Amino acid sequence: MNQTWHADAAAVVTLTFDVDAESAILAQGTGYADHAMTMSHQAYGPDVGVPRILELLDDCAIPATFFIPGWVAEQRPELAPGIADRGHEVAHHSYSHRPPTSMTPEQERADFERALAVFAEQEVLISGHRAALWEATWQTTELVAEHGLTYDSSLMGDDRPYRIGTAHGAIAELPVHWSLDDWEQYAFLPAPKIGSVIESPRKALELWRAELDGMRHYQCLFNLCCHPFLSGRPGRMLALRELVEYALDCGDVRFARCRDVADAALADPGLATRIPDRPADYPG
Amino acid sequence: MNQTWHADAAAVVTLTFDVDAESAILAQGTGYADHAMTMSHQAYGPDVGVPRILELLDDCAIPATFFIPGWVAEQRPELAPGIADRGHEVAHHSYSHRPPTSMTPEQERADFERALAVFAEQEVLISGHRAALWEATWQTTELVAEHGLTYDSSLMGDDRPYRIGTAHGAIAELPVHWSLDDWEQYAFLPAPKIGSVIESPRKALELWRAELDGMRHYQCLFNLCCHPFLSGRPGRMLALRELVEYALDCGDVRFARCRDVADAALADPGLATRIPDRPADYPG
Amino acid sequence: MNQTWHADAAAVVTLTFDVDAESAILAQGTGYADHAMTMSHQAYGPDVGVPRILELLDDCAIPATFFIPGWVAEQRPELAPGIADRGHEVAHHSYSHRPPTSMTPEQERADFERALAVFAEQEVLISGHRAALWEATWQTTELVAEHGLTYDSSLMGDDRPYRIGTAHGAIAELPVHWSLDDWEQYAFLPAPKIGSVIESPRKALELWRAELDGMRHYQCLFNLCCHPFLSGRPGRMLALRELVEYALDCGDVRFARCRDVADAALADPGLATRIPDRPADYPG
Amino acid sequence: MNQTWHADAAAVVTLTFDVDAESAILAQGTGYADHAMTMSHQAYGPDVGVPRILELLDDCAIPATFFIPGWVAEQRPELAPGIADRGHEVAHHSYSHRPPTSMTPEQERADFERALAVFAEQEVLISGHRAALWEATWQTTELVAEHGLTYDSSLMGDDRPYRIGTAHGAIAELPVHWSLDDWEQYAFLPAPKIGSVIESPRKALELWRAELDGMRHYQCLFNLCCHPFLSGRPGRMLALRELVEYALDCGDVRFARCRDVADAALADPGLATRIPDRPADYPG
Repeated sequence: MNQTWHADAAAVVTLTFDVDAESAILAQGTGYADHAMTMSHQAYGPDVGVPRILELLDDCAIPATFFIPGWVAEQRPELAPGIADRGHEVAHHSYSHRPPTSMTPEQERADFERALAVFAEQEVLISGHRAALWEATWQTTELVAEHGLTYDSSLMGDDRPYRIGTAHGAIAELPVHWSLDDWEQYAFLPAPKIGSVIESPRKALELWRAELDGMRHYQCLFNLCCHPFLSGRPGRMLALRELVEYALDCGDVRFARCRDVADAALADPGLATRIPDRPADYPG
Repeated sequence: MNQTWHADAAAVVTLTFDVDAESAILAQGTGYADHAMTMSHQAYGPDVGVPRILELLDDCAIPATFFIPGWVAEQRPELAPGIADRGHEVAHHSYSHRPPTSMTPEQERADFERALAVFAEQEVLISGHRAALWEATWQTTELVAEHGLTYDSSLMGDDRPYRIGTAHGAIAELPVHWSLDDWEQYAFLPAPKIGSVIESPRKALELWRAELDGMRHYQCLFNLCCHPFLSGRPGRMLALRELVEYALDCGDVRFARCRDVADAALADPGLATRIPDRPADYPG
Repeated sequence: MNQTWHADAAAVVTLTFDVDAESAILAQGTGYADHAMTMSHQAYGPDVGVPRILELLDDCAIPATFFIPGWVAEQRPELAPGIADRGHEVAHHSYSHRPPTSMTPEQERADFERALAVFAEQEVLISGHRAALWEATWQTTELVAEHGLTYDSSLMGDDRPYRIGTAHGAIAELPVHWSLDDWEQYAFLPAPKIGSVIESPRKALELWRAELDGMRHYQCLFNLCCHPFLSGRPGRMLALRELVEYALDCGDVRFARCRDVADAALADPGLATRIPDRPADYPG
Repeated sequence: MNQTWHADAAAVVTLTFDVDAESAILAQGTGYADHAMTMSHQAYGPDVGVPRILELLDDCAIPATFFIPGWVAEQRPELAPGIADRGHEVAHHSYSHRPPTSMTPEQERADFERALAVFAEQEVLISGHRAALWEATWQTTELVAEHGLTYDSSLMGDDRPYRIGTAHGAIAELPVHWSLDDWEQYAFLPAPKIGSVIESPRKALELWRAELDGMRHYQCLFNLCCHPFLSGRPGRMLALRELVEYALDCGDVRFARCRDVADAALADPGLATRIPDRPADYPG
């Protein structure tokens, strides 16, 4: 008997937290290291947001996945092991948080492998990967498979998991989407210039509930991406708690770590395999 | 006895879907073909969004019009014929999705005719045209008439259909508007940089219902433009369904394909003819 | 006995309509004259929006003020006289809609006087002025006074009328504000790039009602600026009607033309005179 | 017995007003001094907004803190002493409102000291500092401590007060955040280009109430930053009053001046000391 990837739930929720800290800004210019306010804005993520998020997850008894750049894990050596010890998943989120589309293939490979080395050193098990800014290249999923990971979570070709064929075998893709990202709702900085108006937590909650309801209708993967330096703020944490409680009350929603969804997806014969391919023949 | 263009409905709704897929991005730079995430974000439109939209249209038993760039139809040869076979209209949306205002007159003509050739090859009947980005030139409606199409849907000179006189006779204009486009509500990409905050489906629904009510008051054409890669997302599909159900419940709203509205408009003597004209004498 | 400027109303409403038509875009680049869609988007203002607005004003029996660039009045010679004949005020809104801050003093004077010549030719009485984009220079109010007008409506130094001393005597300033402008709520164009998300009419109505209530509390001038190419759209017209009806229902709100408020303001000894002055000594 | 920084309140509110006036714009280009409308938009802050704010504070019997650039205090010599005489705190907000991150260390020091000289001349007691645009450098908190001030309010490393160790001893940091700033909600100017859509006061109130509730849950410092030229507008003042009344009704919220919170924070042994530090080793 084959189990479906969703185990009969109407929708599966993977709460994911991208713990970018300072790297998200330094990747846009190393000179921002001189901006003390901006650096403090980013440090808030691991320092204040992560403990608050872990407490919420404990309260609600749900698992989550934390995507951490290797450089961030290196700077704060207790961060990744501490999260893993609480039963959550730690996953690969590049070394430097520079987007692969801005690198040569050699640079992307080096950055990818450098992060793996950090987690190996810290004895943190890594099963999956998410590209910085989600800006994957066509090589990205090849690197994921080549290094023995089981899934990527950077693409948007569907709103259910799908299989991606590579030269090293199939991996699972757990697709993300801009509408399920707290960045577009909350992020603001003057330099580098990020964001415009800042949305209220009620608006974000309305958006995400609407999407969750849609995904329950279509049986999808609600793969929410939050940043501790954004969603760790007090009012936003209460909204996130309300979202989790809403999902739990639905009765037909399953919470899972990404690696567990990936395993189920790879074992589900009903899911399609997509071969990512560079579009051909567009007139130059 | 002359029939009015609206056949006594308070408002006429033309649901239109611009199936731009990758072309909307590649037109801004062919290098984006290297961006695997961005390409997957666009491929979601025909791969996931269109089937979901067709299902919704079937459920509600309403017709729609799909504007497809020739290049997209070429890449996915079953797309346009499949839509036409379901009873919907397929219409001309340029070949490359490059805006006419960025081309020479010769380039615009070549791009226009290349798309017609694709649809001729696929034996898909084409009655009307919509410019890429709606960025028509003064030549655009001439090309539409010269090639025997009956309508254009790129201009904003009114919120009811109007006739446009050309050197090749009159065509109908089915005007569009930014407020009836899902792009401004939902689109977001970091590169090319598109959008800012992402609106919730409730907000889009509120906006479109307000506009529909206004159009019922003034007896207008509610010419909604959705993109499958945007509106095909689960939560947005539920909102679109709610909008359709609201319109159906009104009891005074008529759903139609663009070509049928164009035919009715060309036969309605009560509609004005506008001669589009480049503004004169603005001081240089 | 001295009459106050507000005649004991809690707030005074001046509905104003800036009929910019194509000039608002051509001022940003004469090449946009080649963009047929953009030009049709602007022509909608006088062609469709203005008649609809005049009908609303008649229905509600309230007066309004239409600020018209001289070039627009010239292109459509029946526009300004037709509005004046309906009992509304026509006012000076530059000739070309180029902002004064982008001109030399001589250019600003020439543009200012060219518009006056158009209205003189059309025998339309002009009492007041509003700078294009509200981008007045320190010379602007001098020009207003020198040419015998009684008020300007471009500055933001207060939210009640105030007197401005000039070399040619005092004029009234009827201050505007970005929050009472439909542009920030509704405007969108891709080229020139204008706007981001488009707000729903409910949002604009909420904003303007909140401001009207605040102005009733502080006894201010609610000087609303709408653009026929924006607010003339069906759903927005219904919201504008709802705003007018709300104000009328308040029972303590007075509607007036700008010129009448200006006259009352100049006659009210309780209003302060401000001498506009370039800020001094800011370190270079 | 040690008193906690919050004196057992669930949350502490510091209402702060940054009275930037023209300096916020002139810092972006001295040429904006020629823009009469823009200058009037900024002058509205001290001329209209501040008296209205002082009246609200009196009505509600709550204290506040006004951060004033030295240049603004110099231009309007009665501004700072008048605020201090009403029992509110006046604090250091740079001299020129140029961000420290745009200056050399010597320039930052000179600007910092020039502002202190203005307030000394005006006999206004200064206890704390907030960087222009909050764009502190790593030197900023050193300057604060060196000149004998007790606190800074520019950083974002937490949402409770924290101690910062410097070469001149510890100071308190009263952290700010973009979500508690009226700028992102309300600011709009075409030149310099600032803002996009303008939010309604209801939205800002919703956002700030959500954050206040979150902060009552987590026992934080609700350090609200408003600008008199923005929040002094009528509708926004009513919303601010509603926020204050909501906080007072909560029964567990304490209002305080920044200097009093800083003193309490420095005396609370339960608060952590953070040593701000430039991030190390990010790959160049």
